Amino acid sequence: MARHFTGEDVRAAYERIHTRVRRTPLEDSIYLGDDDHKYRFKFESQQLGRSFKIRGALNTMSQLTPAQVSRGVGTVSTGNHAVAVAYAAKELGIENCVVIVPYGIARSKLDRIRYYGARIMTMGSNYDEALTLGLNYIDRNELFYVDPGQYDPRVYAGQGTIGYEIALQHPRVDTIVVPVGSGGLITGVAVGARAIKPEMRIVGVQTAACPSMYQSLKDRVCYTTYPVSGETICDAVVGGAGRIAYEMLPNLVDQWVIVEESEIRSALRFMVEREQTVIEGGSAMVVAAVREYPELVGGNNVALIITGGNVDGRMLAKVLNEPGEHEVD
Amino acid sequence: MARHFTGEDVRAAYERIHTRVRRTPLEDSIYLGDDDHKYRFKFESQQLGRSFKIRGALNTMSQLTPAQVSRGVGTVSTGNHAVAVAYAAKELGIENCVVIVPYGIARSKLDRIRYYGARIMTMGSNYDEALTLGLNYIDRNELFYVDPGQYDPRVYAGQGTIGYEIALQHPRVDTIVVPVGSGGLITGVAVGARAIKPEMRIVGVQTAACPSMYQSLKDRVCYTTYPVSGETICDAVVGGAGRIAYEMLPNLVDQWVIVEESEIRSALRFMVEREQTVIEGGSAMVVAAVREYPELVGGNNVALIITGGNVDGRMLAKVLNEPGEHEVD
Repeated sequence: MARHFTGEDVRAAYERIHTRVRRTPLEDSIYLGDDDHKYRFKFESQQLGRSFKIRGALNTMSQLTPAQVSRGVGTVSTGNHAVAVAYAAKELGIENCVVIVPYGIARSKLDRIRYYGARIMTMGSNYDEALTLGLNYIDRNELFYVDPGQYDPRVYAGQGTIGYEIALQHPRVDTIVVPVGSGGLITGVAVGARAIKPEMRIVGVQTAACPSMYQSLKDRVCYTTYPVSGETICDAVVGGAGRIAYEMLPNLVDQWVIVEESEIRSALRFMVEREQTVIEGGSAMVVAAVREYPELVGGNNVALIITGGNVDGRMLAKVLNEPGEHEVD
Repeated sequence: MARHFTGEDVRAAYERIHTRVRRTPLEDSIYLGDDDHKYRFKFESQQLGRSFKIRGALNTMSQLTPAQVSRGVGTVSTGNHAVAVAYAAKELGIENCVVIVPYGIARSKLDRIRYYGARIMTMGSNYDEALTLGLNYIDRNELFYVDPGQYDPRVYAGQGTIGYEIALQHPRVDTIVVPVGSGGLITGVAVGARAIKPEMRIVGVQTAACPSMYQSLKDRVCYTTYPVSGETICDAVVGGAGRIAYEMLPNLVDQWVIVEESEIRSALRFMVEREQTVIEGGSAMVVAAVREYPELVGGNNVALIITGGNVDGRMLAKVLNEPGEHEVD
């Protein structure tokens, strides 16, 4: 197995960033589970910038050399990662921070990036175009490129502090259920949690609309881009597989669960109407896995990572208006 | 001025409960304000039980005598207070906890009360009937009645810890904007904040659909019940004025702001679509006040108390689907 980073790296990341980020609640679910099965939500939706991404960004950016800090940083992103990099730059006093986005990004995300003082440059009509043009710009201007979780082990170790923190917060947790996009989060969490509790079970969840990592591991091909089939509400977690994740995950994940979009939408309604909290579509994947496939998820003390709370008002309204099979008053 | 409790009582309450409750974030608004005016949200919507009510319940119930603890507690409520009492009873090891509710309460609230181990008894067809029958039951069974914030100064002092905490968290805050129902929260907050910062400005906000305290103070009559005119999304904060609040508030509030329901609905949409967080309708009142009447609210460093996050999915869907005058992409 490739070992790009270890439990010691996650521990060091935790020491480095834990006073700068929120220790988010690990809160009992009121509705999921029974006497023998307990489910808890790890609400990274209440993290700074409303997503877990700040952990990886801070861990990476706080290790830059003075020369790198004075030249500045850049990234290419359409969402939560961009907000996290902008926030971290402000927090660490990195004055030159450039965020490159494609045309057509939601105004609320742009406003948030700008609020934290980052400069926004618009390039290309989609993420892939923005990435090509943006990396070129970042190289030419000698900025430090803050990777969103594909290649940089410091980002993985930073995200992994969530797993480490869960194991600290509740020693009885035996299983962690993680939403999977590029795989950076689940890789970090598996390594981090097992630094404290080696027997921790790790369950990965992807949407059937874009099961990039699941299919990569099955086919033994790292699909760095992957098509989305049909409509998805998991926009924060769709896309290709990350290289480090692809190499490390075969030995880290105990179970994969693929959930349908209809199950995810139902889970999102359940979270709002029953558990009374609003989460991102991508985070609703793990709730869907527990509701629909509890026997696959397994475990007696289960933590569900709720990665973010950046909601799209129009999507939310639409989903809440759908008739719910689970709505029985 | 009647002085049912003082800053010292709030300070003592803070010492008593601060390790048992969450120190909720005081977070910058991305959209409100300008270079000279800063607005921050105090997110009690992320408090235990998803509302500030736990503060008053814990402060009161942790002062009971051993005999009171063993006989148990009871309350009459339709909402957040009942959840708070049930949670506090569990936390404090009070085994006998009875929550009396009228018929027709939302299942999600009943489930949450039951989850924390309280016994639910249904009496009467509305709150007033439930209160009459419930108080009778509580007396007959020698339970301690946990007041929702009308008469018990310990509840006021507990809620007041929010004001105390804001002044500790951010010394530059000069104005606190508070949603007002019975007036318990704003009374506590004014006393608590001024225990640290005597010159703190306090702004109270009520909905035009039920301006009970505003009208009580104006007419010099404590309207302990008050009609709701038209539809309101502020169900957690409508109702009559509290007695202690009525007596203390004339010397505590610097400014009243009455907001229209349409302004509150618009503020709720703004919070979801722009600030990307979901709050209760009653809490959206303070956001509406700042958006529509900034000159009345005043202040340069303003904290807005977001009292709760218990959302009704159907109401939320409806409000999000309304065309927004402020939605300009």
